[in-house]
Amino acid sequence: MSEPTKKEAPLLALMIRTPDEPGALNALTKVILDHEANITYVDIAERNEGESTVYFELEDVRGGVAEALVGDLEALPIVRAVEQAPSFQKVYGKRIIVIGGGAQVGQVVVGAVAEADRHNIRGERISVDTIPLVGEEDLAAAARAVARLPRAVALVLAGALMGGEVARAVYEIREKGIIVLSLNMPGSVPDAADLVVSDPVQCGVMAVMAVSDSATFDISRQRGRRY
Amino acid sequence: MSEPTKKEAPLLALMIRTPDEPGALNALTKVILDHEANITYVDIAERNEGESTVYFELEDVRGGVAEALVGDLEALPIVRAVEQAPSFQKVYGKRIIVIGGGAQVGQVVVGAVAEADRHNIRGERISVDTIPLVGEEDLAAAARAVARLPRAVALVLAGALMGGEVARAVYEIREKGIIVLSLNMPGSVPDAADLVVSDPVQCGVMAVMAVSDSATFDISRQRGRRY
Repeated sequence: MSEPTKKEAPLLALMIRTPDEPGALNALTKVILDHEANITYVDIAERNEGESTVYFELEDVRGGVAEALVGDLEALPIVRAVEQAPSFQKVYGKRIIVIGGGAQVGQVVVGAVAEADRHNIRGERISVDTIPLVGEEDLAAAARAVARLPRAVALVLAGALMGGEVARAVYEIREKGIIVLSLNMPGSVPDAADLVVSDPVQCGVMAVMAVSDSATFDISRQRGRRY
Repeated sequence: MSEPTKKEAPLLALMIRTPDEPGALNALTKVILDHEANITYVDIAERNEGESTVYFELEDVRGGVAEALVGDLEALPIVRAVEQAPSFQKVYGKRIIVIGGGAQVGQVVVGAVAEADRHNIRGERISVDTIPLVGEEDLAAAARAVARLPRAVALVLAGALMGGEVARAVYEIREKGIIVLSLNMPGSVPDAADLVVSDPVQCGVMAVMAVSDSATFDISRQRGRRY
């Protein structure tokens, strides 16, 4: 994001290629710990042909430490290459997740992407991620997983009937700070959501407004309403 | 995925809550290494109020080892809770990323989500993720980042003019195994892509067909074509 955020720390983002074997991550994190850098993001970006690429975002990397840290990583026998990269936060920003039926998910995304476009042009970074799914159990698992997706801030439930275990998942992830919007539909999910919007395009637009830094839309003043 | 994949190993997925401080990841990976489990996915799911939740997917966890591993993790002084969870691969599956202008991205997603719905109903898991962006540099950075996004398999470039650095990014990520589709547009991106499709809805549908396990669409026989 080019907008300032509350906790802006200089980030060092590194891609590190190693053999795909037990112990690689432990050896890398040891070097990072020795330099007192804090790992704010990590994932295994690629695994093929016996190789693995680990991607780290590090904060509290003070001036001068970055080169020494990269040097010590390169000196590890298991390390084949170290490359710097821009952070995912900088590239993709906040994520809104849309889950439900194909017809409704598609229309919510039309609204959300068009609105995100307007915010991103002004310097924000908002992504819209989707999965069409069917069935209470799969929907509940996907909703619960939103709370552990990196950079996810809001969930839109876009279906024609959702309740039971999905509604319980909604209460759980709201506790963890995820904003939940729902289409107007039968079942207990609309009652569990922060906000209910009948039109899917409008629902997508409102999801973006609710998470944007630049919009004046305050979800806490809209909680429990239906549009 | 309920479909068998080439390298199906029993996965253990764990959410581990620790203080948000340097050394936590190193301590956790040490215990995992002691049990000879291989880390196939890791991310930091949540960071707030001085706490951090680390999410691991582990393979090669033999029968009986899982309980001992969880027990040893729980015994670490920094560990506040260990929870088992379904894996992201199981919940969200493969990811198709759509990048470009709001108008086109929205229409590509309508096609991709409707087609993914049909495949997911038959047991696959295909997600469609998007970001509307403007500008050669930001587009190129987002395209390059696809190669290090976990579970990303295809990129759709949905704009009305893309070339230069974006086309170079397309060649780079194709080298890393990402399938790239492009709308028909001015600029050098269509020449760089695997496949060019003029209609955005059709392009979204073809992207899903190209990555699906159940479709008979073979991208290697379509390479270089324009529809």
